[in-house]
Amino acid sequence: MLGKTYDDEVCSMARALELVGERWSLLIVRDALFAGSTRFKDFQRGLGVATNVLTARLDAFVDAGIMAKVDQDYGLTAKGRALAPAIVALSQWGDEWAAPGEPPILYRHAECGGAVAHQVVCEACGPVTDLRAHPGPGMPAGFVEAKRSRRGLTSTA
Amino acid sequence: MLGKTYDDEVCSMARALELVGERWSLLIVRDALFAGSTRFKDFQRGLGVATNVLTARLDAFVDAGIMAKVDQDYGLTAKGRALAPAIVALSQWGDEWAAPGEPPILYRHAECGGAVAHQVVCEACGPVTDLRAHPGPGMPAGFVEAKRSRRGLTSTA
Repeated sequence: MLGKTYDDEVCSMARALELVGERWSLLIVRDALFAGSTRFKDFQRGLGVATNVLTARLDAFVDAGIMAKVDQDYGLTAKGRALAPAIVALSQWGDEWAAPGEPPILYRHAECGGAVAHQVVCEACGPVTDLRAHPGPGMPAGFVEAKRSRRGLTSTA
Repeated sequence: MLGKTYDDEVCSMARALELVGERWSLLIVRDALFAGSTRFKDFQRGLGVATNVLTARLDAFVDAGIMAKVDQDYGLTAKGRALAPAIVALSQWGDEWAAPGEPPILYRHAECGGAVAHQVVCEACGPVTDLRAHPGPGMPAGFVEAKRSRRGLTSTA
């Protein structure tokens, strides 16, 4: 059994995946965001997921502050609703690269109904595709050097 | 043991997660995109992932056309490189909602070094956060009605 955490990672995507990277997690958030699901049976019927798995996922979402439970209803918090762009990003990658045929689901702007697309936008240049990763202010001192050393790279590589 | 596929889902995110939703998958793509990892030992040392898991992930990426293997090097294809925005989206969510302190990694535009952000953009209104899902041209006839019926919703709900 693989663990759920990525203890040696200093990476916000790893932190995100610890909360929403397990099987069914993002599909549950999708149904809460876009299919109107709030009750346990909504998610269960909508997804066909095993009840013990669904219970574990919903409980974990409440523990993580991604959902709040009021009476019998599970509602996304601001933290949970903020996953929408990641869901759109994965869906559009799937539309283009992983799904057969035309898109089965179209995401649109709620207010005007306009088609939406996701982009990575440079503050200076607009939409871009060529990206690099740099150590940020939250990177522990020495971590990058230690990782390079572990991988046999010199510090100037 | 949970399965890997979502057979009853008609959703491009489900198709995407079938290819990149398993544990370690997106971290491997991240290291290929941003850490210069190409060899098995690069990924193994960079991630500390068990060799049997890493072997399974890399083989699956090659089978799915996300990576191509040339001699001893695993390189991302266009399909694999197209995952960058989803990685940025998940990282940004993690920076804001899941990671302690300041961002440990900053993604920047390679050409100019400018800060980048992931956005969902409406064709008419620019960046937006209020989204709705609509059936697309790839949605099988009757699927939405059947799902609503299964959930006990009327067809006008």
